[in-house]
Amino acid sequence: MGVVIPLKDRSDPSANLKPLLDLTDADMRQVNRIIVDRARSDVETVPELARHLIDSGGKRLRPMLAIASAKLCNYHGTDHLQTGAAIEFLHTATLLHDDVVDESDTRRGRKTARLIWGNQASVLVGDFLLGQAFLMLVESGSLQVLKILSQAASTIAEGEVMQLIAANNTATTEDDYLSIINAKTATLFSAATESGATLGERPSEERAALRSFGKNLGLAFQLVDDALDYSGDSSDLGKAVGDDFREGKITLPVILAFRRGEQTERDFWNRTIVERQINDGDLETAMQFMGKHHALEATFERARAYGAVAHDALAIFDDGPEKSAMLDVIAFCIERRH
Amino acid sequence: MGVVIPLKDRSDPSANLKPLLDLTDADMRQVNRIIVDRARSDVETVPELARHLIDSGGKRLRPMLAIASAKLCNYHGTDHLQTGAAIEFLHTATLLHDDVVDESDTRRGRKTARLIWGNQASVLVGDFLLGQAFLMLVESGSLQVLKILSQAASTIAEGEVMQLIAANNTATTEDDYLSIINAKTATLFSAATESGATLGERPSEERAALRSFGKNLGLAFQLVDDALDYSGDSSDLGKAVGDDFREGKITLPVILAFRRGEQTERDFWNRTIVERQINDGDLETAMQFMGKHHALEATFERARAYGAVAHDALAIFDDGPEKSAMLDVIAFCIERRH
Repeated sequence: MGVVIPLKDRSDPSANLKPLLDLTDADMRQVNRIIVDRARSDVETVPELARHLIDSGGKRLRPMLAIASAKLCNYHGTDHLQTGAAIEFLHTATLLHDDVVDESDTRRGRKTARLIWGNQASVLVGDFLLGQAFLMLVESGSLQVLKILSQAASTIAEGEVMQLIAANNTATTEDDYLSIINAKTATLFSAATESGATLGERPSEERAALRSFGKNLGLAFQLVDDALDYSGDSSDLGKAVGDDFREGKITLPVILAFRRGEQTERDFWNRTIVERQINDGDLETAMQFMGKHHALEATFERARAYGAVAHDALAIFDDGPEKSAMLDVIAFCIERRH
Repeated sequence: MGVVIPLKDRSDPSANLKPLLDLTDADMRQVNRIIVDRARSDVETVPELARHLIDSGGKRLRPMLAIASAKLCNYHGTDHLQTGAAIEFLHTATLLHDDVVDESDTRRGRKTARLIWGNQASVLVGDFLLGQAFLMLVESGSLQVLKILSQAASTIAEGEVMQLIAANNTATTEDDYLSIINAKTATLFSAATESGATLGERPSEERAALRSFGKNLGLAFQLVDDALDYSGDSSDLGKAVGDDFREGKITLPVILAFRRGEQTERDFWNRTIVERQINDGDLETAMQFMGKHHALEATFERARAYGAVAHDALAIFDDGPEKSAMLDVIAFCIERRH
């Protein structure tokens, strides 16, 4: 695509996350305190189950992006802390419900909550966290941020329903797939960055720029996630390579390999993804077909293209440590191996 | 208890609902329009599934109570309409998730959404409705109402988790049971009535009075619901008599029959409710034991006691059609047969 995303250190992708970690460190300590505090409940199972996922070593990328955006927009209040915690709760609630919907057994290298406490408690604790997220947002007092995040909650759910309908369906097009990842993933990234801009009470073009940055970063993030499922090192990824394959999930690597493949290959995809008849060696065959058609390279290439859009979105902001850290995150999302 | 709840017509309990229906009729038409409008989505399954439950003939008691409370508090704006719709969405989301958690097959005499569209879509459409509920509340602009209802969403989820933990456990006490129904049912009734008072910007004692009215009405409502499960006419109730029994749900009639019963009876309850070994004729035996120990009468008696508290809570308000309609609802909740 002719776009070059600057990299701090290609051999160590996490170096690209370090400026954001440093920039948000003091605020994230407070966000983490709020998260722990608001996961409390007199009903024992609630905090246990919530903390299982909250403490499982997620990067907290979304609250960090909200905080960095607020800083980029010269926000000097404290509402971004509650907002960041609420965004992480929204994300956690989504993951709890996702794992139930996808019948997933592992998440970030640990047993999923639904395996330990059951599907029922996972659904309900997700609901609890959603309620707590909105309560925190109410307390922080910005109706604009509340609007962005309640709309996001609906859109994410719509995206998950779209994904459910598309599952096991090889007729899913690349456009369908983009609509799905836009709704289920990019929406919360853009809600996070737009919330920061909203707290800073910036003019609408800056809010729009940060919304666009978040959306395109989120698309790149999910594209890479879906490519890593067929290429990552499962010890890094915290989930086994091939999870999407075994779940019959239609992601871009599958869509491209299916469309670029011959009839015998399409028969293979129909048997494995549609009919879910998976034999020993099928994952290796799937990866071989993807290699033959450069499906993973193409997926990463598209991720880089969205990364470039995210990069350009920030052009209207003056240079500085906030902008620089946010640009580095693009490289992190694209080059990460987990 | 020496408390007399006035009845319009004991032979026709729904007559006690009529004043509330009449009082809120014009507003509820608008609430229903908002509900239909906000259940829309470009993702086909979402409105289909949402409308299945929304159109299934629920009484919409909670939004009616919010509207009546707003009227009682001389509120003359229009925010109570969005608030009413949001409360119904919150309730609908809870029911969708409940049916998944309880593995229920029927609701209001129809197949549950989860049987038609699956557990996965039911969870996700519930999430969509929660997001839409908060979005409507944001648009109506009252941070106070938002706070009441986001807190309610968390508390309801906590109540459901408590119920999950108590399920199949005959050691559950009457106090445990009260905590559960207070959280899972009474919370939304009191949030509805308090929201109305909040919109009316009434002094804190009137808000507290309406909160208390809602809470005690909700407790009475749930107690009667749980008694009807062992005594109602299933064609009226929209669910089969004995559903709670078959699901191993611990409700007050079971708690009382267990505690008042002899060892052989307790063995029966342990076999059926704890071990879920239910044979033909066991439901009849359960109802016979309840009859022997007056467990249903005692449950209705407690419902009447909470009804009396709800009645007294409204004493500080001047007499008028709003107050009168709300007092009649107490009788409706207690005398209803479905």
